[in-house]
Amino acid sequence: MSDGMERYTEEDLQRVGMELLTACGAPEEEAELVVHHLVEASLMGIDSHGVVRYVMYVEECLQERLRPGAPVTIERETPSLIVVDGGNNFGQVGAYRMAKEVERKVADTGIAFAVSRRCHHVGRLGAYPQKLAEAGLFAFAVANSHAAGHFVVPWGGREGRLATNPLAWAAPTSGHPVLLDMSTSMMPEGKVRTALHAGTQVQTGAIIDAHGEPTTDPASFYGPPRGAILPFGGDLGFRGFGLGLLVEVLGSTIAGEELTESFRYVNGLGLLAIDAAGLCGDKARFSDLVDDLASYVTDTPPAPGHDEVIMPGEREFRLLHERRQTGIPLADESVRQIIDVGERVGVRVELSPQA
Amino acid sequence: MSDGMERYTEEDLQRVGMELLTACGAPEEEAELVVHHLVEASLMGIDSHGVVRYVMYVEECLQERLRPGAPVTIERETPSLIVVDGGNNFGQVGAYRMAKEVERKVADTGIAFAVSRRCHHVGRLGAYPQKLAEAGLFAFAVANSHAAGHFVVPWGGREGRLATNPLAWAAPTSGHPVLLDMSTSMMPEGKVRTALHAGTQVQTGAIIDAHGEPTTDPASFYGPPRGAILPFGGDLGFRGFGLGLLVEVLGSTIAGEELTESFRYVNGLGLLAIDAAGLCGDKARFSDLVDDLASYVTDTPPAPGHDEVIMPGEREFRLLHERRQTGIPLADESVRQIIDVGERVGVRVELSPQA
Repeated sequence: MSDGMERYTEEDLQRVGMELLTACGAPEEEAELVVHHLVEASLMGIDSHGVVRYVMYVEECLQERLRPGAPVTIERETPSLIVVDGGNNFGQVGAYRMAKEVERKVADTGIAFAVSRRCHHVGRLGAYPQKLAEAGLFAFAVANSHAAGHFVVPWGGREGRLATNPLAWAAPTSGHPVLLDMSTSMMPEGKVRTALHAGTQVQTGAIIDAHGEPTTDPASFYGPPRGAILPFGGDLGFRGFGLGLLVEVLGSTIAGEELTESFRYVNGLGLLAIDAAGLCGDKARFSDLVDDLASYVTDTPPAPGHDEVIMPGEREFRLLHERRQTGIPLADESVRQIIDVGERVGVRVELSPQA
Repeated sequence: MSDGMERYTEEDLQRVGMELLTACGAPEEEAELVVHHLVEASLMGIDSHGVVRYVMYVEECLQERLRPGAPVTIERETPSLIVVDGGNNFGQVGAYRMAKEVERKVADTGIAFAVSRRCHHVGRLGAYPQKLAEAGLFAFAVANSHAAGHFVVPWGGREGRLATNPLAWAAPTSGHPVLLDMSTSMMPEGKVRTALHAGTQVQTGAIIDAHGEPTTDPASFYGPPRGAILPFGGDLGFRGFGLGLLVEVLGSTIAGEELTESFRYVNGLGLLAIDAAGLCGDKARFSDLVDDLASYVTDTPPAPGHDEVIMPGEREFRLLHERRQTGIPLADESVRQIIDVGERVGVRVELSPQA
């Protein structure tokens, strides 16, 4: 590859991840879960939530904001509802526990909802509904962020009040699940930062400066004073704002989380699942009907400029398959950062590009 | 008022609605429920889903596609899930029954989900989560439509495969609920038709012609061959497409509805509610925290071109209050249609503009 970018094997990146996280004190099993999650995100092309996060996670451990091995506990529970305290362990550890609890409850009651407290970064949100859909369930998830991530303005405002607040849903099919994983803002802050470093502009209609004026210049965004990111939807951005609030309410408010407690967590995760068997007779029928829906939808002839019509998630699952062969592309700068952060926890990171 | 538009009182429009629907055979109590729903939508400014629907509803009764007084029954039920057969009675009759059942179940289990079968037009979708939020609950709703309403293309396609598929959510506050009610497409078909009749263009980026090329000309949309409406989101329209599919799955597929059964209903309604008491201790705390969130969010200074930042639903509740005083504006043509349809069921409609 070129442009300061090389490809690395899944296995090498997994090995390095295990070395780093166990050096931070993560129990083997929990490190495996987190590393698998991040490598999968990289394989699926969601690079911002992939192995580049090793760096952030190690730094968070060093600052003792992330506590490897901390117990994940159940704070409150009814037959169909549960509040899971992530104990500031890796967010994925708490989040997969939530998915497990939801699956267990759904088996009893047909529907369940879990919400987190003291949850660190959950990574790729879609991973959790995906897991539940692979078990034959319909699933829906949201994740908000604490106030430090409030880059996104409410519709009509000029100061950030919400994070990029993603939502995701998944449903089972005979193949891999249908899987939508989307932000409720126009773009992540990381993308603005990348443009700033590269000296490029961002797309029109995504960011404003501190005065609330539209801009495409990352420097106007960072100020100071700092600008903000617009909610998803362009001229119809009040819809994206309303979806961002939905994420806030289901990911945090509903668990009794106060805005002033904003530094007790990184993400607030809400996770819902329904077993269609209670509604349509059996899981297999639901999955068959989702197959039919997918056929009906993807059967439309493509519009000019498009090669095909695909279901949400299809692009990511194809890339997962492809990158398992061709490797995961990483910028040299990202590899350098991983090597550097390794030194800080006594790990000599060895990473060579895929042959 | 001018431009072929006059204002009418809530009471007059309620009286006329009762006359029309009871003439179609609706029992008094059910007619009241439907008329109240439509008048409220008109008061809130959602005119396309307001009293103008008297015309469609009477016509549907005359064609025996809508069956006033038909029993609404429970097709399947578990402690937290329910399938309600609307019997092709007015959609609102089935939908309010669903809301009632959901509220009852939530009291037992903390969370419940209902889905409809054989449900006619449910009207303003937001009405149902609003009702549940007024009872202190978090609520989420979706409504799909049968294939005749498939005006909206999947992302990248050029033939309609989904309806405008709205979703709505609501949460309690110390005042009226937070209430988002949004389409997952760029615009309703009705708006394209209005532009056609008015000889105007529609906004850029909302519709395509039958070849999949962008257009602003309603005539290119209607063809034949017919064009289509784009999913919500502009260049990020794959998100709107994914939300439209969410509506399809939760409003219909999950109930076991086959695509080929598409004429057995008008809308497929999915309705979820959660009692936050099971998560954060009590309902009052949840409502207090939603108040705090609303304060934090609306406290941002407005961007240029905006007077204030308001929560979803605020505009509609203000208009409701205002129109209770000033009356509901109706086009002369709409009044003519109401009078005409009245004649077909033996009702002499008397409607005079508000003094």
